[in-house]
This record gives sequence, C-alpha cells and structure tokens, in this order.
Amino acid sequence: MSSPKIVNGPGGYILQDVPHLIDYLPDLPTYQNPLKDNPAYSVVKQYFVDTEDTVPEKIIVHKDGPRGIHFRRAGPRQKVYFESDEVHACIVTCGGLCPGLNTVIREIVSSLSHMYGVKRILGIDGGYRGFYAKNTIPLTSKVVNDIHKRGGTILGTSRGGHDTKKIVDSIQERGINQVYIIGGDGTQRGASKIFEEIRKRGLKVAVVGIPKTIDNDIPVIDRSFGFDTAVEEAQRAINAAHVEAESNENGIGFVKLMGRHSGFIAMYATLASRDVDCCLIPESPFYLEGEGGLFEYIEKRLKEHGHMVIVLAEGAGQEMMTKSMETNTLEDASGNKVLKDVGLWLSQSIKDHFKKIKMVMNLKYIDPTYMIRAIPSNAADNVYCTLLAQSAVHGAMAGYTGYTSGLVHGRQTYIPFYRITEKQNSVVITDRMWARLLSSTNQPSFLGPKHVFEENKETPPNGENCNGVVDIPQVTKE
Amino acid sequence: MSSPKIVNGPGGYILQDVPHLIDYLPDLPTYQNPLKDNPAYSVVKQYFVDTEDTVPEKIIVHKDGPRGIHFRRAGPRQKVYFESDEVHACIVTCGGLCPGLNTVIREIVSSLSHMYGVKRILGIDGGYRGFYAKNTIPLTSKVVNDIHKRGGTILGTSRGGHDTKKIVDSIQERGINQVYIIGGDGTQRGASKIFEEIRKRGLKVAVVGIPKTIDNDIPVIDRSFGFDTAVEEAQRAINAAHVEAESNENGIGFVKLMGRHSGFIAMYATLASRDVDCCLIPESPFYLEGEGGLFEYIEKRLKEHGHMVIVLAEGAGQEMMTKSMETNTLEDASGNKVLKDVGLWLSQSIKDHFKKIKMVMNLKYIDPTYMIRAIPSNAADNVYCTLLAQSAVHGAMAGYTGYTSGLVHGRQTYIPFYRITEKQNSVVITDRMWARLLSSTNQPSFLGPKHVFEENKETPPNGENCNGVVDIPQVTKE
Amino acid sequence: MSSPKIVNGPGGYILQDVPHLIDYLPDLPTYQNPLKDNPAYSVVKQYFVDTEDTVPEKIIVHKDGPRGIHFRRAGPRQKVYFESDEVHACIVTCGGLCPGLNTVIREIVSSLSHMYGVKRILGIDGGYRGFYAKNTIPLTSKVVNDIHKRGGTILGTSRGGHDTKKIVDSIQERGINQVYIIGGDGTQRGASKIFEEIRKRGLKVAVVGIPKTIDNDIPVIDRSFGFDTAVEEAQRAINAAHVEAESNENGIGFVKLMGRHSGFIAMYATLASRDVDCCLIPESPFYLEGEGGLFEYIEKRLKEHGHMVIVLAEGAGQEMMTKSMETNTLEDASGNKVLKDVGLWLSQSIKDHFKKIKMVMNLKYIDPTYMIRAIPSNAADNVYCTLLAQSAVHGAMAGYTGYTSGLVHGRQTYIPFYRITEKQNSVVITDRMWARLLSSTNQPSFLGPKHVFEENKETPPNGENCNGVVDIPQVTKE
Amino acid sequence: MSSPKIVNGPGGYILQDVPHLIDYLPDLPTYQNPLKDNPAYSVVKQYFVDTEDTVPEKIIVHKDGPRGIHFRRAGPRQKVYFESDEVHACIVTCGGLCPGLNTVIREIVSSLSHMYGVKRILGIDGGYRGFYAKNTIPLTSKVVNDIHKRGGTILGTSRGGHDTKKIVDSIQERGINQVYIIGGDGTQRGASKIFEEIRKRGLKVAVVGIPKTIDNDIPVIDRSFGFDTAVEEAQRAINAAHVEAESNENGIGFVKLMGRHSGFIAMYATLASRDVDCCLIPESPFYLEGEGGLFEYIEKRLKEHGHMVIVLAEGAGQEMMTKSMETNTLEDASGNKVLKDVGLWLSQSIKDHFKKIKMVMNLKYIDPTYMIRAIPSNAADNVYCTLLAQSAVHGAMAGYTGYTSGLVHGRQTYIPFYRITEKQNSVVITDRMWARLLSSTNQPSFLGPKHVFEENKETPPNGENCNGVVDIPQVTKE
Repeated sequence: MSSPKIVNGPGGYILQDVPHLIDYLPDLPTYQNPLKDNPAYSVVKQYFVDTEDTVPEKIIVHKDGPRGIHFRRAGPRQKVYFESDEVHACIVTCGGLCPGLNTVIREIVSSLSHMYGVKRILGIDGGYRGFYAKNTIPLTSKVVNDIHKRGGTILGTSRGGHDTKKIVDSIQERGINQVYIIGGDGTQRGASKIFEEIRKRGLKVAVVGIPKTIDNDIPVIDRSFGFDTAVEEAQRAINAAHVEAESNENGIGFVKLMGRHSGFIAMYATLASRDVDCCLIPESPFYLEGEGGLFEYIEKRLKEHGHMVIVLAEGAGQEMMTKSMETNTLEDASGNKVLKDVGLWLSQSIKDHFKKIKMVMNLKYIDPTYMIRAIPSNAADNVYCTLLAQSAVHGAMAGYTGYTSGLVHGRQTYIPFYRITEKQNSVVITDRMWARLLSSTNQPSFLGPKHVFEENKETPPNGENCNGVVDIPQVTKE
Repeated sequence: MSSPKIVNGPGGYILQDVPHLIDYLPDLPTYQNPLKDNPAYSVVKQYFVDTEDTVPEKIIVHKDGPRGIHFRRAGPRQKVYFESDEVHACIVTCGGLCPGLNTVIREIVSSLSHMYGVKRILGIDGGYRGFYAKNTIPLTSKVVNDIHKRGGTILGTSRGGHDTKKIVDSIQERGINQVYIIGGDGTQRGASKIFEEIRKRGLKVAVVGIPKTIDNDIPVIDRSFGFDTAVEEAQRAINAAHVEAESNENGIGFVKLMGRHSGFIAMYATLASRDVDCCLIPESPFYLEGEGGLFEYIEKRLKEHGHMVIVLAEGAGQEMMTKSMETNTLEDASGNKVLKDVGLWLSQSIKDHFKKIKMVMNLKYIDPTYMIRAIPSNAADNVYCTLLAQSAVHGAMAGYTGYTSGLVHGRQTYIPFYRITEKQNSVVITDRMWARLLSSTNQPSFLGPKHVFEENKETPPNGENCNGVVDIPQVTKE
Repeated sequence: MSSPKIVNGPGGYILQDVPHLIDYLPDLPTYQNPLKDNPAYSVVKQYFVDTEDTVPEKIIVHKDGPRGIHFRRAGPRQKVYFESDEVHACIVTCGGLCPGLNTVIREIVSSLSHMYGVKRILGIDGGYRGFYAKNTIPLTSKVVNDIHKRGGTILGTSRGGHDTKKIVDSIQERGINQVYIIGGDGTQRGASKIFEEIRKRGLKVAVVGIPKTIDNDIPVIDRSFGFDTAVEEAQRAINAAHVEAESNENGIGFVKLMGRHSGFIAMYATLASRDVDCCLIPESPFYLEGEGGLFEYIEKRLKEHGHMVIVLAEGAGQEMMTKSMETNTLEDASGNKVLKDVGLWLSQSIKDHFKKIKMVMNLKYIDPTYMIRAIPSNAADNVYCTLLAQSAVHGAMAGYTGYTSGLVHGRQTYIPFYRITEKQNSVVITDRMWARLLSSTNQPSFLGPKHVFEENKETPPNGENCNGVVDIPQVTKE
Repeated sequence: MSSPKIVNGPGGYILQDVPHLIDYLPDLPTYQNPLKDNPAYSVVKQYFVDTEDTVPEKIIVHKDGPRGIHFRRAGPRQKVYFESDEVHACIVTCGGLCPGLNTVIREIVSSLSHMYGVKRILGIDGGYRGFYAKNTIPLTSKVVNDIHKRGGTILGTSRGGHDTKKIVDSIQERGINQVYIIGGDGTQRGASKIFEEIRKRGLKVAVVGIPKTIDNDIPVIDRSFGFDTAVEEAQRAINAAHVEAESNENGIGFVKLMGRHSGFIAMYATLASRDVDCCLIPESPFYLEGEGGLFEYIEKRLKEHGHMVIVLAEGAGQEMMTKSMETNTLEDASGNKVLKDVGLWLSQSIKDHFKKIKMVMNLKYIDPTYMIRAIPSNAADNVYCTLLAQSAVHGAMAGYTGYTSGLVHGRQTYIPFYRITEKQNSVVITDRMWARLLSSTNQPSFLGPKHVFEENKETPPNGENCNGVVDIPQVTKE
C-alpha cells in the first residue's frame, strides 16, 4: 500500500492528506476550473476553496491542548486536472440498499454535467461485478431527473464480486478516468485496492469513495447518508409495537432494526421515540437468565406497567444465539436457516421463558428492516447527498484520488481511504449518549461489575458517542 | 336458538327482521326519543327513520325478477324503550387489533351521552374475560375525546375467554342493560349466545354486535371497518418490496399480508398497487412444482423482467406447508414453531428451489402485519365507524336486540346474528373481481382444468366479489 | 336532443337506459368479445354480464312500495361492436385537478390494450381545446405504467374551450371512434353535445363520460373519484388548525376547503376529524351579526374553550361577501381580485369584529386547496378508478354510447348523460347526515324559524345525505 | 449590562465564557451531582464533562492560523449549586409555533425530575405575559409523557408582553430559582434583561435561554430545532406546486414559505426538492420589470418548459411591495390588510403582468406556513430537542446562568446571551451554498453588476452558508 501523506504544523497540527494524481504523474497539465464562467458562481469573485483549508478531527479542545489531526476541506479548486471533454466517469453502487443512493447518483451526474460540462458518464450495473459485464447504463441529466424521489438504486447493487485486476482492466479498456464508488466499509476497501492498482499501473484515473452504510458504522464521518431517514422511518415500527403492547395483556412489542455491528439506528430510534423500554445493541453485551438478566427485567416491567416495547439491533445477542443453537443439535440440522435471525430467535426465547414460568404474555414481532431501507431519502438526507456528491466531483476534477468524501463536524472533507477502512464505528457504551439512552428507557446496563470500565486516557471521558442524527461526532475519533 | 323473524311481502319480498325486547317482554313502556329536543335534529320536523324502511340484500335485479331478502334500516326511532337515566351500557372489544376500534368506542360513548343523555358507560377490560374481572374502565366523553387518533383499543383486547353463563351473570350483577360487543365472527357467535341467554332469563338487556375483522371476512356487510385503512397501509410494504426487487439481480419482493381465511386485503392491496406480479390467497389453491406451478411462473417472470413482487395472504398455502412439514420429520421436530408461518416457509421454499436449479435470486421478505393493524383509522374509516356506532346505539335505544349493526350497499342496517355467523365471507375466485386481479398481475390461475367451474344457477356468474374498498357487495350474497 | 330510452316493467320498474350505436346505425356487425380467450377470464365459463342486469336508483324500500328507476349494469358483454384493430380511442381531461386522474387514464389505456388488444390510443393535450391543437400524446401501457403514483394529469387540463363542431370535426378527421371524456358537470354537458352531434352525423363513434369532481357534486353516483383522498388529505390542515388554535390565546384555526356549490368535502372532513367547532357550507345559509349569528357563536365558544376550529367550504357565504363588497366601493375598486376569496374575506371580517369588541383573538388562516387537489389518489380511490375505467371501456366496446360510467350503491352502471347534467348534487341540510354534523360540532344551525322545513313527500325524510366516503348514496336521488 | 467574560490562551485562543451564579454570589455552597448515583450513569467511572472542555467557533483552519473564539462545552458537572429539594423551576414558551416545542418542554421536565430529582416545575401560561397572570400549569413527568407527539406548545404562547421588572417580581414572589425561556431572538433579548435584573437584585436564580426560531435566523448555533422538520414538511407544498404547474398550460406553482428576515427554509427546501425553478429570499434583492428581472425570467422559463415552480420566503420583496402600494393609493386605502402578504401581492403582480402581455398563464398559490409550523417534530428534531433540553438543565444545576444552550459544530455548548442577540443569522448570498442553489434552479442572480461583491478579508471566501439541515455552520461565524 502507498504510505500515508502527512503534513505537520505548529501546535501539534497534523494533516492526514489524500493522494493526488501528481503524486505519481507529476507532469499532468492543469486547466482553469470551468465553474469560473458559471453564472451561478460568478457572483462572487473568489469562489474557490482555499487550498490551505483543513478541518480538525477533534473539536473539543482545551486551552492548552495540542491541535491534532486535520483533514483537507472539500470543494472546488481554481485549477482542475481534467478537461470537460476528456472526462469519462463511471458510478457503481455496492452492498445493501440505503435511502439516498439515487440522490447521490443523481447529483454526481448533475455536478459532472452541469458544473463541469462532462458528457460521458456510465452507470455500472449491479455492483462491482458489473465492471466485467457487458451492460452499462448511460447516465444523463434527463435519465436521473426524478430518481431522487424513488428508493433503491437505479444502477442495481450486489454484494461481493470484487476482483481488483479485472475491474482495473475494465476501467482501462473502457477508457474511464473517474471512478465513483458508493458502498460500505467492504466496498471502500475494494475502492482502496482499485486505487492502489491504478496507481501501480500509472493511470490517470481518479478513484473516489462515497461512504454508504445505513448502520452508520463508518468511522471519522459525522453520519452516513440515509441514516436520518432510517431513524425517522423506524419510528413507525416502534409506534406500532407500542400500540400492540398497550392493547394486549402483558403485551410486548418487539422491533428488530438494522445494525449488524453497531447499534446506532436502534439507539437513535429509541431516543427519538420515548416509547421504548429496552434497547439491545451489539456493543452492549446482555444475558437472558438470572439476576440482572433480560428475562428478569421483562418480568419486572410487565408487572409494573402491563406492557413494554423492546428494540433489538440485528447484531445484538448473536453469540448467545449461536451458542444456544450449538447445544441443540436437532434444531441446528433443520431450522438453521430461519433461526439465524436473532430477532426470531430472541422473541421465541422470550415466549418459551414465559411459557415456562406460566405467565401470560403477548409478544408481537415486527421486522421493518426492508421497509426502512427501501424508502426515498427525506429532505435532510437529500441535501446531504447533494453536498456529498458535489464534493466528490470537485475533488476528482481537482486531481485528488484515493479518498472518501465525508462530512466532519458538518464540513465536507476528503479523507484518505485508510482512515475509513481501518475499523468500524460503533456505539461507545461507556459514553454519555448511551447513558442518556439507559436513562430514557430505565433498562439496566446488563453489565456485571467486571464490565464497568475505568476511564483511560486514550479514550477521553468527554467524548460523545454520536455521529448521527444530530451530527455530534463520535467519541471514537477523539 | 330463537327462530328467525321473517316478514313476507308482494313480489317475493322477504324481510329478515331482528329481535326486539318486546318479543319476550311485551309490556315494556316506551318514551319519546330525546333527540326530538336536540337542536341539531330539530331543524327537520320529521327526522326519524320510517319503521317501514328496509334495504335489499341483492341489488342487481332483472325486470321480472323476485325482490328477495331485505334488512331493517338502522337509525333513530320516534319511540325509545330506555330512559336516559336508566341506561347502563358496557362496551367490550375482542380479538386482534384493527384500525378504528377506538373510533367505534369513542362514538358509542358520544352517541349515548350527547344524543341520549346517558351517563353510565363502562368499558370492559381486555375482551370477554374482562366481564369476570374486577377492573372496568369508566367511559366519559372526556376520556374518549382524543382516542380516535390512536391505534389499538383503549379497552384492551384478548382472544377467547367466552363463558356465556358467567358473562350474563356479570351483566345482571352490575345492572348493565345495553351491551356493545365489538369483534369478529367468533365474537359475534359469542354475542349471539349472550343474547339467547339473556332472552331466556327474560332480562331487559339489549345485546348489540359491531362486526370487526381486518380481513373483511364477515358476510352480508359491504366491508368491515379498518379494511380501507389496512389496504392503504399495505401499499407501503408493497412499495418497499418493489424497490428491493428492482435494485437486486433477480430480486423478489415478498410481502405477507393478513388473511387467514380470506384474501380480501391481499387482493385489494394488489389491485390498488399495480406493482404486484403474483397474489396468493387462501381461496385460490396453488402448487409449487411442475408445469403451471408457482416456481415455473417465478422463473419465467424473473427471466423476462429481472424482478418481481409476490403478495401472500397468511392463510394461503397452509395445506402445502403442513404436508411439507409432515414428510420432513427433522424439521418438524425442531423448527416447527417458527416455520408455522407460511410466509417464512414459502419464502424459504423459493430460496431452496433456486439454489437447487442454481439460479441467482435475491428474495426480501416483508411482514408488515402488526404495523398495519396498529395504525389509527383513516378519514374514510373514521366516518364509517361513526355511523356504525350511532346506528348501533339508535337500535338499542329503540329496543332492538340480538343484531349486528352493518353497512349494506352503503346503508346502515340491523342484521340478525345468524346471518353474520352462519359462514365467512371469502373471495370468489370464479368471479370478475378475481379475474381483474389475474389480469392485472398476469399470473396464471394455478388451476388445473378440473378446477374450471361450470356456471351454476345458484351462484349467478355476474355477481361481483367485493365488499371492500369500493363497497361493491360480494357475489356470495346474490 | 335525442329522447330518453325508457323501459317499463312490473311493480313500477323503470329502466333509464343508455343510447347504443345501433339506435342510429342498425346494421353494425358484432364480434365475439376477445376477453373470451383471455387466460384471466377463462377460468369461469360464463364470465360476461347478463344483459338483463340492472341496479335500482333507490334502495331504501317499503314492503309495498314501487320499484322505481333502474340503471343498466356495467361490465363486459359477449358481443362487441368493434374489432381490436379497428379501435382508435382518445382520452381527454378537463377542469380542475383531482386525485386519481392519472389512474383513470392509466386504466383506460390498460383495459383497451390488455383486455381488448387495442393499439391506437391518443391523449388529447390540455382539455377540450386540445382537440383542435396539433399536439397529441400517444398512449401506451409503457407510457402510463407509473403515472398512478403521481398527482395531476399527464394529459394536461384546462377549463372551457368547448366548440362542439370543431371537436367533432377533429374526431372525424383523425378517425377516432371511441372518445373518453373525464371531467365535471360542465364537461359532461359538453360530452353530451358531442354525442348528439356525432349521432346527427351518423358516425360510428362511442362517446363516454367519466365523471370527475373533487367536490362530489355530481348527482346519481355514490361519490366521485378522488373524494376519499381529498377528505383524508384535508385532515392534515384541520390538525394544523387545531394545534395553532390550542397554542394561542383565543386561538382560531380557520381552514378553507374546496366546495363551490356543495359542502361535501367540508362536511366529511369535519365528521372524520372531530376537532372542528364550526363547519360552513354553501347549502347552509348563515349570518354574521346579531343573535344566533356566527360572531356570537365564536365569542361564546372562545369564552368557553379558549380556542376553536372553523372549516369553510369556498362557496359558503358568497352572497354575504358580494353584498359586503358592493356597499364598500373603495374596496371593490382595488382589492377586488384578492378579496373575492371568501376565506380571506371571512377571516378578515372575524378579525375586524374582534378588534371592534376589543377581545383578544388569534386567527390563523389555512388554505390547503391546491395541496389537496394535487396529491396522488389513495388505495381506495385507485381501486375505484380502476373499476370505473374498465366499466367505461367495456361499455364502449359493447357499442353503448352517450353514457357516463358511474357507481350506484357500489355497483358499476351506465347512466344516460341527462341524469348527470340535469342538476348538481348537494348536501341536504334537512337530512340526518347534516344533523350528525351539527351534533358533532355543536354549532347552531344558523337558521331562523322560517328556514325550518316541512317534510314534503317528494323528498322522503328518511333519505341519507351522503354519497361520499362511506358510499351511502345521497338523498337527492330518492 | 454586565461585561463579557473572556479567557485568553496560547495561539490566539479566546473563550467567550458564560456568567455563573458565583460571579455575584461568591459564597454559594456546592453539592455532589446526584447523577453520580444514577444507575444509567454509574457504568462509567468519570462521566462528567471536564471543566476545561471548549468548542471552537470556527473549524475551517489553516496550518498557521490563529485558534480564535471558543465556547464552553455543555454537560453535567461534578458539582452542582442546587439541591434537588431546593429547585423550583419554571418554563415559558414565547413567539410563533415551531415543531419541537413540546419535546423541549418534555425533556426539561424529564431531565429535572429523572436526573436531578426535582419535584417543583411550573409551566408559565401563554408566553411572557403569563408571568403576571394567576394561572400556571404544574408540570410532571406524567403530564408531559406524550406531548412530544403533538405539535404546538402545551404551555401556550404569545408575542410581546415583556416587562422585566414585573417578571422578576413574579419570579421572586413565587420563589422560582431556575427559569427556562424558549423563544426567538426577541425572546432571548428579554431573557438577557431578566438575567441582568436578577443579577442586580442578587438573586440565586439561573436564567437559561433555549433558542427557538423556525427560520433558523439565530446566529452562532448550527441550526435551530424544528428547522429540519419544517424543511421536510415544505416538500409537500413544493410537490403540490409542481403537480399543479405541470398539469396546466404555462402553469406556475407558487409556494410561500416562512422566513421574514432569512431565507434558510426556502433555500434548503429548494435544494432538497429539485423541482424549484426560482427561489426568492430576503437576503437576495430582486426586481420585477425589465432585463434580468423576475418577469423576464418567468416568461423565458414558461416558453422553454411550459411550467415552473417559484418558492418565496415571506420576507422577500417586502420593499418592492411597500413601494408599489404607496404609489397606488386606491389599493392602499382598501385592500391594505390583505395585501400586506407579499405572497399574495407578488402572485397578483405576476398575474397582472401576464394579463398585460396577453400570455396565457395559470398560477396556483400555496401558503403552507401554518401547516408547517404546527406539525410534531420529526425523529432528528426529537433527538436534538432532547439533548438541548438536557444541556440546558445541566448548566443551570451547575450554577451557570445568563446563557443560551446551543449546538456548535454538533456539540452542545453554553453561549453568552450577547452572542445570540447581537445580530440575526442570514443566508450569505455571496457564499457557495447560495451558488449551489442558483446552480440547481438555474435562476439568474437578479443582481446587477454593482451587486457583485469583491471578496473582503473580514468575510473569508471559503465560509459555508449553512447552519441548517446538514449542520454545516454558517459563514457569518467565520
């Protein structure tokens, strides 16, 4: 892998810069940015981003503290490294659906064509494997005009299918010189490999990642697009669960939400709703039986209130389920496929428990996952996707490559791939945001004394746990 | 059981009348209807329903045909059999949730208190079994003021728990003399038994049924309340399924809807959406393997369009599932509980099939059932629930008993219990409405030649199959 | 005008039949209905509508009463008068927007092409005047595929522009032989004239009306399409008005709704909402000043509750406004255009009154009219529009002409033009539906003693006032 | 006025600190924060905010640039200055409605009672003037439990009515020691005066402002609560306008949105929608007649596309309207009151213009203002309101006073009143966000050459213009 570009400055200032085409093609010619002649931009004499602009990763600072890591600010530059006629761009969407995909596609196309006069834009069909398929989707302003009002992705998507060499061959054969890759952390790792291979071959091709994850589990950035819409839509399921719970004797409304590795959607949906009595996420271990366990809490809650709502992120309790199914080989042999769903498994476990203790209980299981993923993005996400797409395009035109376009403290920045792919973002359960959640649901922490963490200096106590709805960046960055 | 009250008239006219308190309490005094002094009603000199008014069950008629069965028209009468101070009413909700339950409760309370000056109204807590519990919920205009904006039932509900003798004892002990019972066909059968027992004991107690079934499977009436709301809300799931299907290679969006015995919601949701390629309901048998089977159709559709949407009513294919699980004892022993869900079973069967034939396929399973049941009723259902509740109250005040309040061809009527409970309403698959559906989805009928029906004279071919959204009454009545 | 076709039968049976092409082209050949070979329809041996089927106009009947007027039942016939290749259809939309227009267009195209194999279908651009413009919009299944999810009309619309001769010339020149005209009562009168002219010229052209009016003011039919959607959408404005009213000292939320000549939307929206304290419609005269007037009622209500919601149909109080503006010539000369809006005028009058009596009052004026008109139709209206369009097409194929396709007591029928155009449907304020409204709002009737009507025998007292949401047909028919 | 508290540090670090009770009551005792014993918080050993934590106002930085202004980070402190039993809090809401008011009220009550064990919380009825009225609304967790699902404010609100002396008298008489004031810039100025008077009187009373403005015109903070919801809801009106425009010949959909002094809602709603052709805001002057004027642009657009959508912030074009009405005395004398509405005035002016040039045009005017203000807050705003309320409470408990709780770059901070009230936030039309808007609508800038600004060093060119949906802080701060 190419080594990180680091710039140091006074007061402990560090810039984690992104690669540029001239890093390995030093003699590329530059051109004046055609935005200079755009009537919309001509109102202001000096519209372009100052090349010195950077954005700090940490913004909770002490009077005497060091300045820390910064990222390069996104935006249009005076000089560009592509002529309009020269650009041949392609866009690919990978992984699961997420509200806003179509808006991002639309705005990359709009930015390229309206701002930079680009005419050749290809949609790759059905994820990475579309690179070595014949079909591509020609993209024009007209084709994408109304797509932001529809859920899903007009390009189609798939998981996996990444073969770096074949993809770069395809890019080279087709003469593509700007590659926009929309996808989660696996996809971004793939994008990083494509960038490395392109660099190795010495091609004038900009590789740009646009982070997509409905779970919000991509590090560094404030929140991922579609997250806001997903939290909003999840309210509908929680409301229904609440109604079912209230209308039945010892009613339990049980909602499974997305979140394989991180419980952001479950946490924010719980905080926004105020009707949830228990929120279970992958980051916070829990156990079922005995004192301080989930069953005890449910019993207590039903006895006190007569009903309750449980929200579960799909990654929570996976270990317990796996273990439970191993010890029960009969089930493993047969019902395996279906029972892999932790929501079905846990709701069945709760039913079994109450049958065992002979307590009436009515559990209603709601899984709105696919309904949430498939809706069009809301207004906030539409604006977000627009800025994200524009930033991505400005960067590629300016010759940057090997970067992810991302929002840091509400600012568009260019982040080197390694920061996006090195780890996943997750809810920090020793942080105040999770404390707020516990305080709002009144659920126990399900942690034994061994789990109670000492504060350590690497993880400052004052961090906040929340990229997400309110765009308070997460503690993991600080 | 008491024998039906039948009145015959010229031209083949038949009135299937409802019981009246004076049938067994002939000397009851009557009072002037207090509505006479209500400013809202005083505008019109003769506001009350003519006691001769009836509504025909069949309205598709021939010039020379017989007039057939009629029902008594609902509405306020000049004379009432209860004084305001004397009335002690109770309301109970039974069975599953349905949009509009709270509106019906609200409007029974409003009608009794505002129109008839009744002050004592009790809510029975948690279905039939609430009759022999201590807790009851005092109902006033203030208590019910905003409940129509919430889903569920503020009275709570449960299934079963019916013990005729104990319930009538409770009614007698509490001095209740008007009983409003909201529930499905099982509940209405219970109401019928309560009525018979009360009649046997010679009590001055009016027993009134209000039919509730989100599945629309109650006969005679145009549609059940909440059905319209349910069909509307189902669109959301179908839209999501459509988006998921379109965005994935050979994507299948699979939506399970309500409908244990009748597929009305699935049929109307399909007709309203236009994005559905296959609608499976309990009334229309289908098979999976071989020529003309479901798998063949799915393969064909995916090859042609690359994606498809399937809607399944939960009662469809039950026999096949049972049979499949019997022959597969391993599964039966373990995965049984979970697999009882036909949606999960069928979607798994489809996945298995495509694995077997090695064709890529992406199925997304959506079960919006509880989200649909729990939403508040829409405007159309709110108005419907209001008229239904008012009709129910007018009838009880007028001394009628042992009836269900129901909409027939858009008219409020009183229907004797036996017509509501004698059978379930279901989609007639030899009827034009189902033909319309087949025509809209282009799915095969999945019927072998043996299934193709000869027209027979008892079931006229020209009937229409549809109480429901558009209130075209169903063929079974004609 | 051609004279009505009337058929008499026993028991006072009357059929108001619709014209047929063979009335003036007696030698037309017939063909077998191609639906006979449609797989969707082939399940049932005898699918087609019995030509004897009729539907009564009145269905509240007495044992000994006469049978009255009937309409011909809609639906496919065994024999058709057009070959598939021969048909050249056109569709035109006239007047204001209404939810469902695009669904009706879509379903006429679908029915013609999928059921009858028709290939030539033209959209007329922008209402009647589009007949003598050059542009037309070729309509295919593909063009109309998704349009039912959008509000408005893809054909464009306009008011007026009707020139019978020029339109029929255009029809003749283009070789069109089926004309589908979607519009309100004025439009239907235009359709009637086109039919008469075509008949006069002896052309084999079927002229079919599809009644469209968001106000629900077309007689005979149960309700007009889009009405259900409009009432639903109006709730949003009423809710907002309620919130504004409650949050301010002596807050008044004032909502103007559609309804130039009839107050159906205002009435049903009020009944569905339950938050409205005063509903003003064109049919119910009211006055502002003095005892029993509107101002007095508002003062009283504010003193008692501290807030109130007023719903006004745009046609209500027009006379008062005109009168007020005549006596105030200055205003007339200048503010005329703006002040013609009765909502603005009345809300200003209320403000002036409270200023005069020095009582604090906060009125918030909400006019959601265009937001209601422009939304896509809901599920119920989608199904309704589908059946309406199919019925219209079946009739034309069967050779009927000069009719409106309409729902009568939930049954699709063919109604002769003169019944649709002879008068407008309106809320009968001496009827029980309006009494229900008065009872729900507690507003006074604003009628002096002279307004209290004697019941007269032509307008039976037991009618109900309500085609509309719950599809209880209106009193005016009975 | 008390002088600002400023702390200086190395590298140009400046802290604009907020007042504290010990500034004038130096001997106040402190207590351990009861959160220490809260199970939700006990998981982490050192949960509390480090007192050194601050957040920079500007975060676009250069390697060698100065550090600039900072604000104190919000959050719970180890030591508090109130005992739970001692606290007597009150909450007041002032000014116009805004989504989220009830959530803020709910969460102040929840934070005080659940986190700090406070029992005495009063709601002041109907804005500032409620301080000298008798009625107050006792607030408990139970009272506020469901209010976040309703629009408006349960406390009522009003404009004006501020009398510092009387309010402080009332606070003193009632023994209130924490005052939470929710309102816009005028209200915050009032809060500042109350703080100064309390300080003068030497009272132990914390005065806390919570900024509320649906227009987003409060400086320093990222965005105001409710703004996100408002932009979302505005889409509905824009969609309707788009449908109306498309369905009519030369159709213009004209939407008036909030924004008396700043056009943020109009700008973001336009950016989110993509259907808008012209967005007019108070910050961007425009003219009607002649070359480069609005009329010319409308004509051009209609000729090219046949329809268009205009969005107008209510403060735009006020000067023109005033001027136009001055020169037209007739109108002024009569239609004045109504015509003060710039939306009605401008839409009338457009109609007049097209009448004059005899060009067909259909303008539909939509004013969704009150419908937007009155809806409940969405999920994102619910979470935001929760954090805002908790921060406000933590600050007061910790003895801070005279501050506004606000979000800066996604971080909760305490901002001294003078920064909030010194000026209004507004859209910077020489900034990139506005350029993006111009680029998305393709509208001209309506600026003559004299308006084209030279960049000046005080307003760095690289700022971004947007607190708001995506929480990119506005250029005015940098």
